[in-house]
Amino acid sequence: MPTAEATARAQSEIPAELERDPVFVAHEGGKTAMVATKPLVDRDDLARLYTPGVAKVSSAIAADPHLADAYTARRNTVAVVSDGTAVLGLGDIGPLAALPVMEGKAVLFKQFAGVDAVPLCIETGSVDEIVDAVARLAPSFGGINLEDISAPRCFDIEERLGRRLGIPVFHDDQHGTAIVVLAGLLNAARVLSRDLSSMRMVISGAGAAGVAIAKLLIAVGVEDLIVCDSRGILCRGRVDLTGHKLKLARATNPRRVQGSLADALAGADVFVGVSGGVVPETDIATMALQGIIFALANPNPEVHPEVAGRYAGVVATGRSDYPNQINNVLAFPGIFRGALDSGAADITEPMKLAAAHAIADLVDIPTPSEIVPCVFDVRVAPAVAEAVARHV
Amino acid sequence: MPTAEATARAQSEIPAELERDPVFVAHEGGKTAMVATKPLVDRDDLARLYTPGVAKVSSAIAADPHLADAYTARRNTVAVVSDGTAVLGLGDIGPLAALPVMEGKAVLFKQFAGVDAVPLCIETGSVDEIVDAVARLAPSFGGINLEDISAPRCFDIEERLGRRLGIPVFHDDQHGTAIVVLAGLLNAARVLSRDLSSMRMVISGAGAAGVAIAKLLIAVGVEDLIVCDSRGILCRGRVDLTGHKLKLARATNPRRVQGSLADALAGADVFVGVSGGVVPETDIATMALQGIIFALANPNPEVHPEVAGRYAGVVATGRSDYPNQINNVLAFPGIFRGALDSGAADITEPMKLAAAHAIADLVDIPTPSEIVPCVFDVRVAPAVAEAVARHV
Repeated sequence: MPTAEATARAQSEIPAELERDPVFVAHEGGKTAMVATKPLVDRDDLARLYTPGVAKVSSAIAADPHLADAYTARRNTVAVVSDGTAVLGLGDIGPLAALPVMEGKAVLFKQFAGVDAVPLCIETGSVDEIVDAVARLAPSFGGINLEDISAPRCFDIEERLGRRLGIPVFHDDQHGTAIVVLAGLLNAARVLSRDLSSMRMVISGAGAAGVAIAKLLIAVGVEDLIVCDSRGILCRGRVDLTGHKLKLARATNPRRVQGSLADALAGADVFVGVSGGVVPETDIATMALQGIIFALANPNPEVHPEVAGRYAGVVATGRSDYPNQINNVLAFPGIFRGALDSGAADITEPMKLAAAHAIADLVDIPTPSEIVPCVFDVRVAPAVAEAVARHV
Repeated sequence: MPTAEATARAQSEIPAELERDPVFVAHEGGKTAMVATKPLVDRDDLARLYTPGVAKVSSAIAADPHLADAYTARRNTVAVVSDGTAVLGLGDIGPLAALPVMEGKAVLFKQFAGVDAVPLCIETGSVDEIVDAVARLAPSFGGINLEDISAPRCFDIEERLGRRLGIPVFHDDQHGTAIVVLAGLLNAARVLSRDLSSMRMVISGAGAAGVAIAKLLIAVGVEDLIVCDSRGILCRGRVDLTGHKLKLARATNPRRVQGSLADALAGADVFVGVSGGVVPETDIATMALQGIIFALANPNPEVHPEVAGRYAGVVATGRSDYPNQINNVLAFPGIFRGALDSGAADITEPMKLAAAHAIADLVDIPTPSEIVPCVFDVRVAPAVAEAVARHV
């Protein structure tokens, strides 16, 4: 209940064109709110919910920390943490500008899985500083969803937080994307009556999503996998590679192909684009026919889906206006629902694989234009949650 | 919507006697939840509230950070931050055990002033570490309410955060208490037809509350003020004093009284207890007759209100089962409501004084048994908010 004066003052600063834009209208006042789940009407309520009653609950938790799961909201609460360094396609726009995205994510968490998500946009800093700040907050949360943190820092941050904390830490740009990509590929292979693990695959993009997709594909037995960054194919011969890219170069590319993305695509069965670059039709034309093309850059796919359709048997994008939208919302709500309910200490590789299969299995008979469920399919989150919980 | 299995599992770990205790029943599942304030029903909603629409809002905020006040929930959201080092009368019970208290505080923020408060219980550490972790979170919040952080660290932490951040930082154990104590003293003086500033005052307790009360009393012109800690009167001659206690010794005690609390009380008009200690009736009996006794330790006042009533003209406690409950909830919701609505960068001394007067003024004709409004008086938070906003 802000005062009328405050509302008037805030509105007076808004450019008129924003006040007419339906997107901005939908964001007025933000998209999330905190509510009390217990009635507070009289002194008895106050004495139970706050002092002196609450002291009994705090004392009980001090004696047995597990009771916090039953008598606080912690067990159902996830922090959605971003430092705003890699927001959507916008890049390093800072924590304040990232806040609408994190609020949107919180809306999705609630809507699709009943998870209470708290947007926490933090001033960026060194990996040490970010890890320390997030770790220090952990007592309030049952899980940490990292979001829109730039690579390669995101890998270190997630790994170190995972080691330090006893609750799930999940960088959605990596694993949420990888899980839904794998779900889509599983069904695309079914559509084409192919064995996924024997297909030649190329990933364009060696950032958060590309790295996580590569790891998950290796985990399901894909052997002929090439990953490209903006300079070309990751291979053992490249002297400019360090850290996670060097590891990836060693774990992939068994035929030791060198060169550009175009060189990688020649004869490939599967292309997964998570780069934001543009792939010319002439390169797509060198792929094996009736393969799979996932052009996931948003809003502009690496190759237009209509062009891709001239060559591939199954095409997917990140967009809602074409068939086969690869959207993280198919994964993260159910992942956390399952992890929170089962008391998982982390989100393991078997959980991610189980989630991908659960998503894929919801499509009874996959077709070229339906390899993943609709994002509004209410069966998705519970199925993913159950699959995750089964692998704790 | 946790699964039935999860609920069953969580409950199976709970001792049976807790499941029957109404206080614990009221805390089941916690007391707060995050909700979406905008409907998300179809693809159009998704495209507006999340990608791709949200990118426009994020870009606009990146270009003009002030737009975050209009298009995110930040402007109405306060972090309730505790490291669990000084929780209620329980002491250093840690962040997890502090969580029920912070959730309760969030319930009060919402109920009394419509403020969205997020409980953030953080692992404690050095002052540097706490300040850095909290400061790093600030982009998500319109204000920071510090709570139950041990003295003297709380003074440093609040001061340094206040300097580093452009949003209000308010340690409620200090200032919330001081504001309501001052409101009560203002009306107690009216009841007794006395001039507050000319009364001899003694505060027992030189922690968060005692220090803040002393500062506010000095600000309203009280001259003869003595503060005692557990070792006795703060005076210039004491060699064991450092930091805030040394400053306080220099700013108070103009008659240079030395000795114990008993020595301070002899002839005093006002006693304010925020220590948790016990004051024997024989010491109370040495005070000037028809004075004021605020015995605020909870649940056990420093002197029983019936005993205090034998000597003092007005008696107050922190308890709801005696008249004149000095309760922070009269202050903090309205303080933050006013600060958020007016875009205040901090909570200044004039705002605190204005808040105290606003609370006091809501009691038309103060009597010995009514010097402060009822905590459920719906006029309180708006009146405090307005008074605070007037002094930005």
